[in-house]
Amino acid sequence: VFCLCPVCGKRMEFSSSCQNIMECGLDNIRSLKVESGTWVGYEHSSFCGQQFILEKGNYPCWEAWSGSHAYHVERLTSFRPLCCADHKESKIAVCEKENFTGRQWEISDDYPSLPAMGWPSSEIGSMKVQSGAWVCYQYPGYRGHQYILECDRHGGNYKHYRDWGSHAQTFQVQSLRRV
Amino acid sequence: VFCLCPVCGKRMEFSSSCQNIMECGLDNIRSLKVESGTWVGYEHSSFCGQQFILEKGNYPCWEAWSGSHAYHVERLTSFRPLCCADHKESKIAVCEKENFTGRQWEISDDYPSLPAMGWPSSEIGSMKVQSGAWVCYQYPGYRGHQYILECDRHGGNYKHYRDWGSHAQTFQVQSLRRV
Repeated sequence: VFCLCPVCGKRMEFSSSCQNIMECGLDNIRSLKVESGTWVGYEHSSFCGQQFILEKGNYPCWEAWSGSHAYHVERLTSFRPLCCADHKESKIAVCEKENFTGRQWEISDDYPSLPAMGWPSSEIGSMKVQSGAWVCYQYPGYRGHQYILECDRHGGNYKHYRDWGSHAQTFQVQSLRRV
Repeated sequence: VFCLCPVCGKRMEFSSSCQNIMECGLDNIRSLKVESGTWVGYEHSSFCGQQFILEKGNYPCWEAWSGSHAYHVERLTSFRPLCCADHKESKIAVCEKENFTGRQWEISDDYPSLPAMGWPSSEIGSMKVQSGAWVCYQYPGYRGHQYILECDRHGGNYKHYRDWGSHAQTFQVQSLRRV
């Protein structure tokens, strides 16, 4: 279950994905509460634009889910539930270059700083999700643009930053964690 | 080692704490790179105001370390290195009410959503750091105000949100992790 309280004071509860909140009579979403499960919110309709991971808890304002970005769109227009695997089984391979080339690392834990663990740069060229769902972040400490990667989307293959989401404009990824 | 590149183009390297960047000839910090260790940055001089955890990596803009806040101060005036324990030994007790009263949980792992793990509210009343250093966040998913808590500060006892930092104005804590 998923509650939304837009600025007009209207409150709606959702238990499945929503492709466009405007078709549900909501103009915008200014606060929300996740009552169960893990969800992904999107800036634009049809699951496009910036991605926001939404875990159980209270989000009283737009900043609560957006993380930090250079541009503040203040839009959350579509969202969907996320299938989360057992964290013990989550696995992702990160590659230095696009198309699964260059140096490769297999990761099965949370990494608040990839450079701190020895990854040679602040970029990742491509990623292959072998199990579970992951969220990758542009900056260390789980900050900046968020990219949600799942084993059952794209066949788990994200061979270029263009595959990470329509908002991705750079290979920069410095932290990642299981969801 | 710690590099700072302010807007003027000046670049300085630090390997120990700095109480006021202005005394080092820097007007403001607009980007930085952590080359080793984990640091804490502060909005104001003398380690006051908003706290920013800084792990190894590149921070090309203020948003990269700030996380999301209702007010964007764009100030980083002091910083210090952080003593990190072995994550396997990190331990913190979180209490429902201030002064270590109410229900209590012992935590030794990262929690992107305390409510998802069964914590009954979006607030924590007090915390006791038994081992290591921790960063707590206002919102789920490691977002919003950051509070750095250490076993060797305040004797590890944080009995009210006023002890978490001079910028804390609420008991709201919905995620936390080891650093």
